[in-house]
Amino acid sequence: MVRYLIHFQYFGTNYCGVVKASKNAIARSGKIGVQDVIENVLEKLNPYRSTKIYVSSRTDSGVHALCNTAHFDLVRPPNKPEAFRDESLCLGLNSFIPRREQVRVIGARRVPDKFHAQHNAISRSYLYRIAVGCTYRSLPVTEKDRCWAIKSELNIEAMKEATKLFLGTHDFSAFRSASKENSFKSPIKTIDRIEIAPSHGLLDRHWSRGHSHIQFWEVSFRSRSFVYRQIRRMVSALVSVGKGSRSLEEVRAVLESCDNAHPKTSPTAPPDGLYLKEVLYNEEDLSLENMQESESSEIVRPNL
Amino acid sequence: MVRYLIHFQYFGTNYCGVVKASKNAIARSGKIGVQDVIENVLEKLNPYRSTKIYVSSRTDSGVHALCNTAHFDLVRPPNKPEAFRDESLCLGLNSFIPRREQVRVIGARRVPDKFHAQHNAISRSYLYRIAVGCTYRSLPVTEKDRCWAIKSELNIEAMKEATKLFLGTHDFSAFRSASKENSFKSPIKTIDRIEIAPSHGLLDRHWSRGHSHIQFWEVSFRSRSFVYRQIRRMVSALVSVGKGSRSLEEVRAVLESCDNAHPKTSPTAPPDGLYLKEVLYNEEDLSLENMQESESSEIVRPNL
Repeated sequence: MVRYLIHFQYFGTNYCGVVKASKNAIARSGKIGVQDVIENVLEKLNPYRSTKIYVSSRTDSGVHALCNTAHFDLVRPPNKPEAFRDESLCLGLNSFIPRREQVRVIGARRVPDKFHAQHNAISRSYLYRIAVGCTYRSLPVTEKDRCWAIKSELNIEAMKEATKLFLGTHDFSAFRSASKENSFKSPIKTIDRIEIAPSHGLLDRHWSRGHSHIQFWEVSFRSRSFVYRQIRRMVSALVSVGKGSRSLEEVRAVLESCDNAHPKTSPTAPPDGLYLKEVLYNEEDLSLENMQESESSEIVRPNL
Repeated sequence: MVRYLIHFQYFGTNYCGVVKASKNAIARSGKIGVQDVIENVLEKLNPYRSTKIYVSSRTDSGVHALCNTAHFDLVRPPNKPEAFRDESLCLGLNSFIPRREQVRVIGARRVPDKFHAQHNAISRSYLYRIAVGCTYRSLPVTEKDRCWAIKSELNIEAMKEATKLFLGTHDFSAFRSASKENSFKSPIKTIDRIEIAPSHGLLDRHWSRGHSHIQFWEVSFRSRSFVYRQIRRMVSALVSVGKGSRSLEEVRAVLESCDNAHPKTSPTAPPDGLYLKEVLYNEEDLSLENMQESESSEIVRPNL
């Protein structure tokens, strides 16, 4: 058995989320999870038994990842080399992902047997993209399902002021959506960074007409971890401050209430604009320094 | 009857091209044309008879448009106002495009009855995006179907030198692919502009790992018109010069041969990297200056 950490990307629009879909969920939505795609691919690498992946950071249907991570234990047949070489494993995985899938493995590395992609993560960074001045229907086609379209103007300075409410350590119960995991996970989180900055549209340098009035903004978040849907609910609160429909004091009162059912709570921003950007680990947790380079590494020779 | 010009965008990956698909083509590929999407939407605006659109610039399956154009004649029922207001028509069209479609109308304007989207066009600009240093399988997911992945390094200076072969007026028979239209369209075209410039990946500012070795380049073209697949074949020739697999003299010899079956002709670059960027008209051809503002303009009130 050899444990690996992989880094992978996806556009979440066509998936029910990153985690494996139940049969009921597939029947209901017709969508599988990103985990299903990767586990199906691992099956093709000729393992001795089927391989389950442990994703570090859950994302919902429609949420994207420029970089998510997962670990898994690969057990090879007795007559095969035990380990794949890192680059070779990455190439092999990508070569088996069907062309229709919006999933890409961007790195693979062998890690110690006790490494855990979720528990060892020391920070997670997210990005939320907003297009101001258009509706979903009038968004450029290059931005469809890639950002949140907001028709009205936003008071960005007021939004920047509101980010300060969330920075640092708070009980985020009021910004948590219901989930099976709520009962045993702490709602107390420490947010290290929230920044709002002007941004660009995808390919906007090449727009010749029709969209010049649209302004792009992005909100960046970093924390060791977040409660379920915390970022989308914080973005929704920030945008309501930007629109003038909520005051700073109202948002503060919601946060301090620790009450998920507070009457002034904000709805959840759409998944389209949210991107998991990076999951970080301590190098010492990843290091194999006491393990010798395996002589039995196998080069995957996919049928490219 | 009122004639309109529309500007529209699309990602071409899921379409058989911009023009209407035949029943056979739909049965074969499962893909419709962008024209089908727009004509289906026009049907919903309650016309008196079905409306056919005349697209200015044909694009193949997989080729994108940041801005293509088409004209059509809308005939309203006798009890309805004859004309839509321009902005209202644009909004109405977008409101009826199904969410799954990668098509967006970005402008609509009433034009003179004799205006023709294809024949009145005075220039067409295209963009071709290239990612250097990766294979299709290792392209970032944000670039999937959005650019041409080239593994080997390119000699950009040699490619820039090669663009000069194509500038100006030439018989482009050697760079034309077979099409039903070939027999009655001239292969002599004048290229006003070809430029190769460094570029960016979509969202590359937010990549945290895995893709830092990829370089992006874009090639821009402008001409009144092009022969069938001329740009993708010119790009292929430029890239073979960049790779060192064709010399400048060989490309010159192919061009001067005017021979589509020349043994040193280049293959066709993939459609993924090609974007129609702009179609220009003379303002006087578009102008309604002798027509009074119609009192009977109707505001489309779509069910948003």
